[in-house]
Amino acid sequence: MKLIKQARETIERYRMLRRGDRVLIALSGGVDSLSLLEVLSELRAELGLWLAIAHLDHQLRPGSAHDAELVRQIAQQHGLPAIIEAQNVPEYINSRHCSPEEGARQVRYRFLERAMRQLGANRIALGHNRDDQVETFLLRLIRGAGPAGLAGMPPVRGPFIRPLITCSRADILAFARQRHLSYCQDPTNRELGPLRNRVRQQLLPLLAGYNPQIRETLWRTQQLLGQLDRDLEALARPLLARATLVTRPGELLLDKQALAEQPDSLKLQTLRAALRQVRGDLRGIEAVHLEALLAEFKRRRSGAQIELPGGWLGVNRGAKFLLTRAAPSAPEPPDSGEYSLRVPGETVLPSLGWRFRTTLDRLDHSAAALRFSEPERRLEIALDYAKIKKPLAVRLRRQGDRFHPLGMQGTKKLQDFFVDEKLPRSERDRTPLLVDRSGIVWVVGWRLDEAYKLEATTRQVLHIRAALLSA
Amino acid sequence: MKLIKQARETIERYRMLRRGDRVLIALSGGVDSLSLLEVLSELRAELGLWLAIAHLDHQLRPGSAHDAELVRQIAQQHGLPAIIEAQNVPEYINSRHCSPEEGARQVRYRFLERAMRQLGANRIALGHNRDDQVETFLLRLIRGAGPAGLAGMPPVRGPFIRPLITCSRADILAFARQRHLSYCQDPTNRELGPLRNRVRQQLLPLLAGYNPQIRETLWRTQQLLGQLDRDLEALARPLLARATLVTRPGELLLDKQALAEQPDSLKLQTLRAALRQVRGDLRGIEAVHLEALLAEFKRRRSGAQIELPGGWLGVNRGAKFLLTRAAPSAPEPPDSGEYSLRVPGETVLPSLGWRFRTTLDRLDHSAAALRFSEPERRLEIALDYAKIKKPLAVRLRRQGDRFHPLGMQGTKKLQDFFVDEKLPRSERDRTPLLVDRSGIVWVVGWRLDEAYKLEATTRQVLHIRAALLSA
Repeated sequence: MKLIKQARETIERYRMLRRGDRVLIALSGGVDSLSLLEVLSELRAELGLWLAIAHLDHQLRPGSAHDAELVRQIAQQHGLPAIIEAQNVPEYINSRHCSPEEGARQVRYRFLERAMRQLGANRIALGHNRDDQVETFLLRLIRGAGPAGLAGMPPVRGPFIRPLITCSRADILAFARQRHLSYCQDPTNRELGPLRNRVRQQLLPLLAGYNPQIRETLWRTQQLLGQLDRDLEALARPLLARATLVTRPGELLLDKQALAEQPDSLKLQTLRAALRQVRGDLRGIEAVHLEALLAEFKRRRSGAQIELPGGWLGVNRGAKFLLTRAAPSAPEPPDSGEYSLRVPGETVLPSLGWRFRTTLDRLDHSAAALRFSEPERRLEIALDYAKIKKPLAVRLRRQGDRFHPLGMQGTKKLQDFFVDEKLPRSERDRTPLLVDRSGIVWVVGWRLDEAYKLEATTRQVLHIRAALLSA
Repeated sequence: MKLIKQARETIERYRMLRRGDRVLIALSGGVDSLSLLEVLSELRAELGLWLAIAHLDHQLRPGSAHDAELVRQIAQQHGLPAIIEAQNVPEYINSRHCSPEEGARQVRYRFLERAMRQLGANRIALGHNRDDQVETFLLRLIRGAGPAGLAGMPPVRGPFIRPLITCSRADILAFARQRHLSYCQDPTNRELGPLRNRVRQQLLPLLAGYNPQIRETLWRTQQLLGQLDRDLEALARPLLARATLVTRPGELLLDKQALAEQPDSLKLQTLRAALRQVRGDLRGIEAVHLEALLAEFKRRRSGAQIELPGGWLGVNRGAKFLLTRAAPSAPEPPDSGEYSLRVPGETVLPSLGWRFRTTLDRLDHSAAALRFSEPERRLEIALDYAKIKKPLAVRLRRQGDRFHPLGMQGTKKLQDFFVDEKLPRSERDRTPLLVDRSGIVWVVGWRLDEAYKLEATTRQVLHIRAALLSA
């Protein structure tokens, strides 16, 4: 009963549910989500709830269809409507070049939101517990995060609620044993990334050797950071209202002057709030993106644009700052990791860690001949603009990339080029490629493609300067 | 030269030094402080500095006198004035019941401030580096900290500056090798607490296995938290000015109403700023103290007082809140870990994690007889007030503690009492003892001392209710 009491308190404290709410329970079949179902079923009458179940068979491992069948039976036993779907997550992951966890997460959340609409629900209940929270804290700490990231999964965000977020895994297991719940043997455990598994199995035990209460201690720190994050949000709300000049679907224009007096943390928080308002959420937005936005926001000179995940842009307009959906002329959906380049102008790509400046000039043939006589490593380059099959974009390497290195005979696999140039493996995956519709134009910092070089016939020259965003 | 350039940038960025500053260098004789001396000597003419050296021989290990001699020679070679002193830190540690690191830290900082005054210096330069910072971050994370604690050692705090705080240990070692500096073999390493050593030797290598750049990553997170902390301080400054009703040496009275609209994080930050202003610094103030202050600040009912390290009190006065130096009638210097109890009234002891409420009543003999017929475990108790040798205080157990458990024959060692009661070892060190000038009055939650029990002659009864501060 302890678990039910604790969940009820959490629901009240974070105002997760109101009488008449229609709640979709994300049921993986593991012990957390099954306990969540049990808890919410028990509170259903008291809280005046309508319940349903959603399950995604992500096909990431052989047994997944069996779990889906178990969930179907459980829904029947409870007499609850259920949406159970299979999706080819492995294929999704391959096509998006993302990690298995990230891919599974994306597909899962989109599925849940769709299922919510289909069933006319207005809340989605997730089974995350306090131990998940603490592991997430450590994961983000290891990968790098600011205060907001460390604050962890919020108890409530949009329609998503986490009624078990203050309950420990031990309490959930005890509850499941007591209720004789039969659950899938940790199906989620196998979905865990290798790093999360190591955090759980190596790091937390080591830390517990230093402080037996380490989970409670980290949880407490996380709560303080969460409180701070919510407070900063509250402070940013009136600031955003004051700074907003124009707001319409897909566009938000800010007055920099209105925030001039505020410290950086509040400027940043206001930019976050603005982005969330115009974009709907902050999915995919990382510390690097926010830092790049802030740095540009503080710069007076207008012109640069910052590419943000999901096809959004931050555009510096001197005394104003525009957040906008990228123009539909972008070469591909930005989820592909391909970022369009502004010509002429400045483009900041926080995801890749690079900034590009482009200018268009008439060609001075004598200077050009001097500057491109040898294919040495450089971050500044000039091309024959007429030869480019627009639009220009920047991306990282993909399987099968080839190009024709300047000064060589014929094309070469990019992989072989990198090996010959003795580029360390870690750098190969981080080197940006300038591409047009027909392929690689410039391996940034390494070599131009022969087809785009300046020639006697060149009239208009495109200058590109690339620079690493400072660490 | 890289190290000198980096230190110069750090000095500029955090505005550590101005022309004409008189800088005392805290020289342990280890590689960090020796490199710091070398760097500041090199920058002396350029920055227009006067330099001196201070060294404390803490007598914590046999070789410490040798290090002092080395420092004396170095000061001579550099032609710098030096204050070199020996102090019996082990004795200090024993008398204060603190950890060796904490004791050494306290003695060292007091010595440095005194040496600064003696030499007419206005800055004290410390040799902490970026790796120290990262280790401190992990240490505080393990022990429990809020955002401000995680932000780490500030580059500048009062007269203290840390010119090498952005330099890595590797860079410092390379510099020392290049300059052929002969330093004591890591004298500071042996002063490290066992936990700091384990963080350095176990935890950081494990984390580096997850993320080879872990030091840079944690440093970056810490920088973000530091920025946030400085920003919150900047926001709190005008709030403190607005809320201050009375300020004089040893006393600061705040108007709660002036902060009513602010989120908790800013209330907390304002309380920190107020405490720092009236007290001079925040030494010894931990998250528990600040949380207790905030909780009391938000409570409307007046009356409770919160004991803070260094003999300071926070007193709730309804619509106002008073920060004040504890009355000189306090039984002992509060560094001893003994906290005076308000009678009648409420005392919050964040350091111990307990709250005490006391009331004075005339005795109702029938009820008293009922309530104290057996010595069972309870958190509420009543005493004969006339029998107490004032003042009343609360502390943790000490070597040699004895008392006369209610209902038993004669006195007993507290240690034996705990063993007989099967109190786990971890709880023995956390159980508060109510004491007066003649000894233990009540082992809180366990047993009253026979001498204070209610009797037929009792006129005035002291009721005490103890409560754990909620986790």
